[in-house]
Amino acid sequence: MSKASVKDILIEMKNLSELMVDLAYSALLFNSRDAAEEVKKLENKVNRLNYEIKKESLLAARSVEDAEELTALLEVGQATENIADAAKDIAELVLKGIKPHPVFKMVMEESDEIIVRVTIEEGSELAGRSLGEILLGTRTGMRIIAIRRGESWIYGPDRNTVLAEDDILIAKGNEAGAELLRKLAKNEMSLDEL
Amino acid sequence: MSKASVKDILIEMKNLSELMVDLAYSALLFNSRDAAEEVKKLENKVNRLNYEIKKESLLAARSVEDAEELTALLEVGQATENIADAAKDIAELVLKGIKPHPVFKMVMEESDEIIVRVTIEEGSELAGRSLGEILLGTRTGMRIIAIRRGESWIYGPDRNTVLAEDDILIAKGNEAGAELLRKLAKNEMSLDEL
Repeated sequence: MSKASVKDILIEMKNLSELMVDLAYSALLFNSRDAAEEVKKLENKVNRLNYEIKKESLLAARSVEDAEELTALLEVGQATENIADAAKDIAELVLKGIKPHPVFKMVMEESDEIIVRVTIEEGSELAGRSLGEILLGTRTGMRIIAIRRGESWIYGPDRNTVLAEDDILIAKGNEAGAELLRKLAKNEMSLDEL
Repeated sequence: MSKASVKDILIEMKNLSELMVDLAYSALLFNSRDAAEEVKKLENKVNRLNYEIKKESLLAARSVEDAEELTALLEVGQATENIADAAKDIAELVLKGIKPHPVFKMVMEESDEIIVRVTIEEGSELAGRSLGEILLGTRTGMRIIAIRRGESWIYGPDRNTVLAEDDILIAKGNEAGAELLRKLAKNEMSLDEL
């Protein structure tokens, strides 16, 4: 087995499954067909990656110990696929046009990790800076799940993604972090104050 | 339907399912039977809660519109149960005594969200303070999944949980946040420097 390839595949599966759950909840919360469609697309990708992991693992087992250790990797791969499937089930509600019960919004607003949507307004220091440069995740605890820019979307942005005025950020974290992000986006707070 | 009770049940299910995934990965990463046992216990709880949601929803539907909206809640409940099941599958590997392939550790160290274990050392400002008081999650982006204190564990600590010297924190976040947490715990950094 190419260690590097299995490692990279599993990292990608884990990252995608986590992003998918966040995106699926966001899609339902904000009634976004775009985000729901993205979840479905990512689910196909996770399924393909899981197939690759299985194939590589079967080719790699040389001993009983190998086989046992590889079993754990396969199981983790399968678990990420199952999580991805759960996310897809949520996304499909949005695609079917089903509106969630008002209680859902309350649930999303009161759970440990909440999802919020904020717009970068004129003068905000977030505009023109990359997520990595301002260490947004580290300094506010908020993880950006997706960015809506005009008609297009950026899903799962990374540290090199540069923010822009009018971007709509979909972010996950706790209530205190969400408040910081809101203030930064509305230009009511500067990065120095973090 | 008692809105309050369904809301509270769903919040608890969502919180638990998220905690379980983190705990399950931690259990495998650090080969912790305790954490794995906790995941199994929580899975039973999630299953019971999902049953409650189903029962309450069936009692509550009064119209076609009601039924549609409630379908979405049921689906979200089921998705959280499926996520909880995926976490349990991972935890069971640990309980079976299966060691993961060395690649697993590399995957956990290189994915977007990593899980780390740090010990609060003598003199660290973290000792004696509550998570809410120091806004640890907001200011480092690290979410504390579990705390090992001597022989006992605290799973899913909240803002009122007070940290103590020698606590072993299991935390999730990005690499930059993990570095901050390590420095705080090792007394190489003070809270003012955050």
